[in-house]
Amino acid sequence: MNTLAQFFETYLPQIEAEMLNVVSTNESMLGEQPHTLVTMSRYHLGFANADGTSARIASGKRIRPILVLLTCLASGGSAETAMPAAAAVELLHNFSLIHDDIEDGDDLRRGRLTLWRVWGLAQGVNTGDVMFSLAHLALERLIDRGVAAERVIQALRVFDQMCLGLTIGQHLDIGFEQRTDVTAAEYMHMIEGKTAALTRACCEIGGIVAGANADQVAQLGAFGRGLGIAFQLQDDILGIFGDSSVTGKGNGDLARRKKTLPVLRALERDQSLRPIYYGNAPLNIYDMKERIEGLGGRAYTASLAEQTYADAIRALDRANLSPDAVNLLKTLAQSLLGRTS
Amino acid sequence: MNTLAQFFETYLPQIEAEMLNVVSTNESMLGEQPHTLVTMSRYHLGFANADGTSARIASGKRIRPILVLLTCLASGGSAETAMPAAAAVELLHNFSLIHDDIEDGDDLRRGRLTLWRVWGLAQGVNTGDVMFSLAHLALERLIDRGVAAERVIQALRVFDQMCLGLTIGQHLDIGFEQRTDVTAAEYMHMIEGKTAALTRACCEIGGIVAGANADQVAQLGAFGRGLGIAFQLQDDILGIFGDSSVTGKGNGDLARRKKTLPVLRALERDQSLRPIYYGNAPLNIYDMKERIEGLGGRAYTASLAEQTYADAIRALDRANLSPDAVNLLKTLAQSLLGRTS
Repeated sequence: MNTLAQFFETYLPQIEAEMLNVVSTNESMLGEQPHTLVTMSRYHLGFANADGTSARIASGKRIRPILVLLTCLASGGSAETAMPAAAAVELLHNFSLIHDDIEDGDDLRRGRLTLWRVWGLAQGVNTGDVMFSLAHLALERLIDRGVAAERVIQALRVFDQMCLGLTIGQHLDIGFEQRTDVTAAEYMHMIEGKTAALTRACCEIGGIVAGANADQVAQLGAFGRGLGIAFQLQDDILGIFGDSSVTGKGNGDLARRKKTLPVLRALERDQSLRPIYYGNAPLNIYDMKERIEGLGGRAYTASLAEQTYADAIRALDRANLSPDAVNLLKTLAQSLLGRTS
Repeated sequence: MNTLAQFFETYLPQIEAEMLNVVSTNESMLGEQPHTLVTMSRYHLGFANADGTSARIASGKRIRPILVLLTCLASGGSAETAMPAAAAVELLHNFSLIHDDIEDGDDLRRGRLTLWRVWGLAQGVNTGDVMFSLAHLALERLIDRGVAAERVIQALRVFDQMCLGLTIGQHLDIGFEQRTDVTAAEYMHMIEGKTAALTRACCEIGGIVAGANADQVAQLGAFGRGLGIAFQLQDDILGIFGDSSVTGKGNGDLARRKKTLPVLRALERDQSLRPIYYGNAPLNIYDMKERIEGLGGRAYTASLAEQTYADAIRALDRANLSPDAVNLLKTLAQSLLGRTS
């Protein structure tokens, strides 16, 4: 297993097979074939069209389950043992996307109608709950792979603390929507939950499954957390200053008056920007970009991302784990942050 | 501990203390005091008003956590050991109420505005997810009470199978809303998830925590399941034929054209009723009651409830558990079903 590409190629099919097995094993109690609920789960996960026919829709990069497998390998465990946890974090991530789409009123995801737009609000909320339950059932299958019961409980507690952190982050994010006084510090607190809780838990759980000691698990958690934060901050920069032809994101964060770190930092340094950004008059995007840059919003965010990334890598090194898998983790981190070194 | 009333008096405060402890311990990460999210959780649970001030709102009968404690006692365990599980099932029940209120578009619960009507749809969905996470964190505290890790995992798997069953039941129920061809069999399948999954899991988990053997756990599950089904069927009868001055339910199920078992049975026996019940013309409630009764819808439901109840009691007897706690369980069952013997 020399390259990250080979790792993805080998394990992505296994992760997806485990996810589908969790869905089909547990939904077999439904009797009926094909059942609408199975179709809904598969539709959201990208394995089916809305009419139930098979599909292969690009469904995100599956970074989170790969983090689980690589941290488990790095800690001396096998990827096979951690497979239930890999499926669990991806199912949990997808649960959160189903509910986020409802909470944000979004119509589209991955180029298709969101689940709630196809099947309605009530079924949308409920299918999120189904996937939340399936994520837990997936994780509990660790016991069937011979992981010690104490370790499984430890993984479950980390998992549910993460679920709580994620929903607390979402609570804060929803609250930001109506406010014009969100601070940079509050924003960092929000992404700690909404973005970093899950990447942190992925890395902790990988270590726990492999039997890593408490200090190693803590370092892995710091690595995963830092990776999540750094990635989010980079995303914030690209959302304002990115070349949309490269990022595919259309650098529209300013047009949507999103409250991301570069903006919040600039607003804190020049209060006079506030009524402009939060006002109703059309925004001069070009001018706003210049002012955010001039006020150091971009540099501040970039430097924080840089520092968080470096801390994350240092934490990973301190865990003192198996070098081959650690190198793959570093390659993954670099590719996520768009670095060449 | 001689009477059920004494049991409630002793343990209800402990159950509620455990629930509040789970909420406050886990939400302490929020920092801010008082935080809106804490207020929302406490509001829904009946411990706070919407402005965050303390309240004591009648919040259901807490039957489910009492079932956990009594089945644990009956199986030779202590109520104290099972307390985290008791808190977990009540938190989980409350999670499902938060989302049900959204899915059904309900404005009122226990005489107050529903959570989503106070804080909006997005926060409502998310606070349900918060409570789902807290329910799991509550259950995982079993390990801190000295329950063996294998038993805790077993309880967690039963718990998450129940969560899935509950959401599958809700999926079916939402689907019934628009349909005019729901069968009695489909209805029974729906309440198996929506009503019986949770009472069944309560009794299984009580046994598991106490270290009951597999057969005893199965019998306890059959007892809990039967109790849930019998209670639902009795509720269906009262919803149509009950004296509203006694039941407080206003026997309005026909006015709302609900698809409960007495109706579905009658519709299956006389197809000509179908366009009347599912039509748009005002319904003659008195006439409809007579016809459901004449077609045996009431007798069929009552007899099924009767039989299910008897089976449940037989299962409890077969488990061969400690007689004092078993007697309290039977008293609870009788009181739920409004029986005097």
